[in-house]
Amino acid sequence: MASFEMVDRDGLARLGRLRLPHGEVATPALLPVIHPGKMLVPPERMKRLFGAEIVITNSYIIRGREEFCQMALKEGVGMLIGWDGPVMTDSGTFQSYMYGEVEVSQPEILEFQRKIGSDLCTMLDIFSTPETPEKKAAEQLEETIRRAREAEELFYGRVPGAGGRGPGDDKRSRTNDDGPGTPNPEPGTRHPEPGTRNPAPGTPEQQGLVLAVQGGIFPALRERSARAVAGLECAVQAIGGVVPLMENYRFADLVDVVMSARKELDPSRPVHLFGAGHPMMFALAALMGCDMFDSASYAKYAKDGRMMFNNGTRHLEELDHFPCSCPVCSGSTPERTRKLPEEERTVRLAEHNLHVSFAEIRTVRQAIKEGTLWELVEERCRSHPALLGALFRLGRYAGLLEKYASISRRGAFFYKGPESSFRPEVLRWSERLERRYEMPPADVTICLPEGPKPYSRHFYQTVSEIESRWDARFVVASFFGPVPLELDGMYPVAQSLVPDELDGESIRRMSEAMKRFSHRLKTPFSLVWEGPGSLSALEMMVQPRKTPLDDPEMRRVAATADMQFGAGAAKALLSGRLELVRSPNTGRVRNVLSDGQHILSLRATDGLFSLRLPGAERLRRAFPPPALRVKVDADAAVFAAQGKNVFARFVLDCDPGLRPNDEVLVVDGTDALVAVGRAFMVREEMLAFRKGMAVRVRRGAGSRGGDAENDGD
Amino acid sequence: MASFEMVDRDGLARLGRLRLPHGEVATPALLPVIHPGKMLVPPERMKRLFGAEIVITNSYIIRGREEFCQMALKEGVGMLIGWDGPVMTDSGTFQSYMYGEVEVSQPEILEFQRKIGSDLCTMLDIFSTPETPEKKAAEQLEETIRRAREAEELFYGRVPGAGGRGPGDDKRSRTNDDGPGTPNPEPGTRHPEPGTRNPAPGTPEQQGLVLAVQGGIFPALRERSARAVAGLECAVQAIGGVVPLMENYRFADLVDVVMSARKELDPSRPVHLFGAGHPMMFALAALMGCDMFDSASYAKYAKDGRMMFNNGTRHLEELDHFPCSCPVCSGSTPERTRKLPEEERTVRLAEHNLHVSFAEIRTVRQAIKEGTLWELVEERCRSHPALLGALFRLGRYAGLLEKYASISRRGAFFYKGPESSFRPEVLRWSERLERRYEMPPADVTICLPEGPKPYSRHFYQTVSEIESRWDARFVVASFFGPVPLELDGMYPVAQSLVPDELDGESIRRMSEAMKRFSHRLKTPFSLVWEGPGSLSALEMMVQPRKTPLDDPEMRRVAATADMQFGAGAAKALLSGRLELVRSPNTGRVRNVLSDGQHILSLRATDGLFSLRLPGAERLRRAFPPPALRVKVDADAAVFAAQGKNVFARFVLDCDPGLRPNDEVLVVDGTDALVAVGRAFMVREEMLAFRKGMAVRVRRGAGSRGGDAENDGD
Repeated sequence: MASFEMVDRDGLARLGRLRLPHGEVATPALLPVIHPGKMLVPPERMKRLFGAEIVITNSYIIRGREEFCQMALKEGVGMLIGWDGPVMTDSGTFQSYMYGEVEVSQPEILEFQRKIGSDLCTMLDIFSTPETPEKKAAEQLEETIRRAREAEELFYGRVPGAGGRGPGDDKRSRTNDDGPGTPNPEPGTRHPEPGTRNPAPGTPEQQGLVLAVQGGIFPALRERSARAVAGLECAVQAIGGVVPLMENYRFADLVDVVMSARKELDPSRPVHLFGAGHPMMFALAALMGCDMFDSASYAKYAKDGRMMFNNGTRHLEELDHFPCSCPVCSGSTPERTRKLPEEERTVRLAEHNLHVSFAEIRTVRQAIKEGTLWELVEERCRSHPALLGALFRLGRYAGLLEKYASISRRGAFFYKGPESSFRPEVLRWSERLERRYEMPPADVTICLPEGPKPYSRHFYQTVSEIESRWDARFVVASFFGPVPLELDGMYPVAQSLVPDELDGESIRRMSEAMKRFSHRLKTPFSLVWEGPGSLSALEMMVQPRKTPLDDPEMRRVAATADMQFGAGAAKALLSGRLELVRSPNTGRVRNVLSDGQHILSLRATDGLFSLRLPGAERLRRAFPPPALRVKVDADAAVFAAQGKNVFARFVLDCDPGLRPNDEVLVVDGTDALVAVGRAFMVREEMLAFRKGMAVRVRRGAGSRGGDAENDGD
Repeated sequence: MASFEMVDRDGLARLGRLRLPHGEVATPALLPVIHPGKMLVPPERMKRLFGAEIVITNSYIIRGREEFCQMALKEGVGMLIGWDGPVMTDSGTFQSYMYGEVEVSQPEILEFQRKIGSDLCTMLDIFSTPETPEKKAAEQLEETIRRAREAEELFYGRVPGAGGRGPGDDKRSRTNDDGPGTPNPEPGTRHPEPGTRNPAPGTPEQQGLVLAVQGGIFPALRERSARAVAGLECAVQAIGGVVPLMENYRFADLVDVVMSARKELDPSRPVHLFGAGHPMMFALAALMGCDMFDSASYAKYAKDGRMMFNNGTRHLEELDHFPCSCPVCSGSTPERTRKLPEEERTVRLAEHNLHVSFAEIRTVRQAIKEGTLWELVEERCRSHPALLGALFRLGRYAGLLEKYASISRRGAFFYKGPESSFRPEVLRWSERLERRYEMPPADVTICLPEGPKPYSRHFYQTVSEIESRWDARFVVASFFGPVPLELDGMYPVAQSLVPDELDGESIRRMSEAMKRFSHRLKTPFSLVWEGPGSLSALEMMVQPRKTPLDDPEMRRVAATADMQFGAGAAKALLSGRLELVRSPNTGRVRNVLSDGQHILSLRATDGLFSLRLPGAERLRRAFPPPALRVKVDADAAVFAAQGKNVFARFVLDCDPGLRPNDEVLVVDGTDALVAVGRAFMVREEMLAFRKGMAVRVRRGAGSRGGDAENDGD
């Protein structure tokens, strides 16, 4: 069947590779809708001008027109529309929504799609509208689920008792809401004959089935629908019934619909958001984990003179100047364009709409690559208050988003507005600080104001003067909440850019976080630093220090270890005779040695540790399974021990607390440490994906392979 | 001399037309920097590909190279760079900043610029850096001011005692900080010979002088410098010494520097922001009233592989996908572009930078046309926290910005974030409500929650039920603060789009505004409406109504009149036998008649009144001069009476309280009403501009001309 692989990621969003009979498609992907009857822009031009790799057309329309039908059956759908690449076909569901019932059964339309050689064949689901009342939507959903099961059977056939791997079953029973679980066929087996088109050379992939999620605007129904789809075999999981939401700018409701579905869908398959053809949506949809979009709008809009932009829609009539750099716009003016003959004008506008849409897809891909998709979404959501409302709504799903958010990323954290405090990094910082950070005992805690970073350099004078006289701890009131001075190098604090003047909302959140933190303080006194004047207060309140000054860098190492690996990690790691190796240039700590063993390296990029085998072994002994571990089967263990990466299909289990880019212990069935590396996937993904890397191994236990200083990953 | 005309506006930002010897230039304008030695993109291509209308080159560099110098003197600077359009030349000030002193005197370099036929010749000012201490910056500023006077004399010559028109003098003494005021020559007179190039046919314009504002980062010095420039004759007012601020992302300081200068500059002349070549800056700079930018960056960036975008800069090396739709980007990929020979690659990147920059200029122009520049700026400022900081800083200048902000505009008001509450519309609403709105007496005030607009329709049921039983007034707690129900159709309330969930900052501002408002309430009771449950509270607190129910539409008319024209306007306008003429379709009030006279029309677009002559006459009698008036000279009065528009140069005085798009009374020297219309300029502009329309007259007193129903303007 069609196979999907995740090659890079930013939270739920990912850069993927979808292999189909007629070629490979990079995701996120935009599928221009091709109407065999009226093509404004022929597919061949779609490829040349915009780099389109896959298109979508409607099998119901083709089947309904004798000449289309005959040609498609004879030559294949590709020939019909003049395109030799992958084709997805829709089933007529949308027509049933637009014009009431359709005169075709699901078996008929599915068989037809297969016969005409579509790469992705879509089920015939029931389109529930946002107006559909809950009871009705539930009934319609039951029928959609019934048809989904029927479609799976028609398409892949049933395999009595076929087992698949343990975690696969485990996964199935986790996601499948109808009992013991659907069989989980191995790739490329037991598939019916492909359609009349011959798969392109070198792609053994089979045609894939597209199952749809429905359920109206009711999150519980969407969840149930998604669980059902996840429990069945299919190539693509589509979210349907959302067009009216987007047409009416009900983006906050769209967030509820997509997120409640995404939560339950199989993370190893691409998610298609049906009808999301407006570039102003792409970044937000990708952030919610959608991989594919189809656009009929580029043509529909062009026909009534509307131009799409990534911040909205404008009518040609209302423009004096083109607010766009695309070839269509930079080559002409609105006035000249208005004067063109209608047909030519419509084509120009359609090409503008496609230029802007594909550029936005490229923008989203680049943002995912850099890990800056949140920043992009916060920019895009500025274009309409309804999108901003959607961003606020997304705050309700901070927990789910945090689970998939990388532990650190390439780009800096840019503050964009009050909603930036919904970002996973902010939630994670406050949670970990509360659960994992213990302030070392002292006589007084001093709260420093926000300032240039790194704080410890900015406040160096103040801090060293105070420490020379008192046993004090320091915490900075930052946008992320309280930042103990010894953690000021850790992502995202040191890598964040926040304006000097903050909005009231962020300030409120900051002070609340500071309050919560100060309640946990164990020092007898605490003091808000207001400059040298505050010294007198210290003199009155606090006894001069009796204990010797401890090494602040050692404090940094200990605090970072607990924040990164969990409370108790410092104790486990930092035993024996410790030695901090500093960079000759920066003077910053680079490596931590214990009894001569290199246990940790401190990365300059994000202020977090890279694990060395001895350090990993200490953590393994201190933390019971499954903490910090990825458990792999015997064969994979051998490879990992040689320093080779771990692939998802060999993962038996994984710590649910692990996040992308977390340092992980690779262990075998006996919990013996076989390697250290960085996680690329989270647990759900490792157990679901059949392709792709789960852990990038830095060093194997049974090998000299790998590079102890390789912190590049 | 060069002449400048404002053709459209959005606050301080404007669409302008600058006439120069070698042609006309539309503003806001981007001037690509052309280096005669090394041209990445030849000017002719600049015009063809990007629509450049004017370029800038450096006279100091030309003068320094024998071959350039000879050719420029012989054939003119245009020939030297291969460009037949307008050329601005810089003087060497930037070189003196980069490399210390320059070996040329101001008289020499000015004379040289004139001789080579530059359209805009720049003075040789002293470049104070952001690091320059105040005392030093002040000394350097004195020398710059001395040179500005010298430059004016060299360029235009002195005209002993030449008066200019009264208001002109008035303006001079207002803006000129060195006493009696510089002579104010009439256009096209007393000018020295132009340079060797012959002005293009049909443009009698003479070469223009560019004077510069300096003063480092000290607002007081910038103000003094701007006053000096405003007091001297020149074609363009340039703000200098800002490049280091932009290079170091000190955008908040840039706001202080530009706004303190803009406040004092002559509003009738274009403002050039030296060195602002990055598209991420254009929208903000235009919002602050800058009309011209020069870009050397497009080439400088291209040479080290950096690509400009309207939301920042990226290095070609770091890109996998081009986040851009320009012809360069949509025609290739980063990978292929990296493989190009260096020279070709650099040209491609330079052309990308120009595509994006000129597209952003078009975007800014379109936004000014629509009156949506604030929305654009709030989007752009999301691209970097330092720009967001600049936006917050701009909040300090809300008063100045309000003065130039239109009374209503075409586009809807889009909420973008907490900083949206700094917008002029919000400030104006709260100020006018406080000064101009008086709530009619009643037994109880009921505070309604924010809801769909128009409020009066949304709350219709509730309101009519309550009013049938009690004498109540209603006020909605909106993003703009309190909105009395009878004002719910007035701009910006009815025309605003605000998300359902607001940020904490906006909520805080809202509740503060509500508190201030409730302190002014005169009703014995007030109540926050929490649904039908609140009825019982009313039954307990409030006596049943005794007085008959008054007409809510009449209340709307009265309240709107006071808000629009000032407290007392309703009383003055709404005397005699009143009649409200409603639209047959919408049922909304369209016209107000008193004793059979048509005095007001209520515009559907913004819920404000258009004045009719009888209404205007009532206001004239009720409000003493200069309130609501534009006073014109005798000749202009005759034309205005015939329904012709009023041009700035004939305006004698004007109400400083008038805003763009305000309804105005056009009066003659005896305060007789000669016409009604809408203001296009504010007082400072009317007194400063020598060209262009000040008031669009709707109807003249002495004519049947004009169209009584023409609310289109």
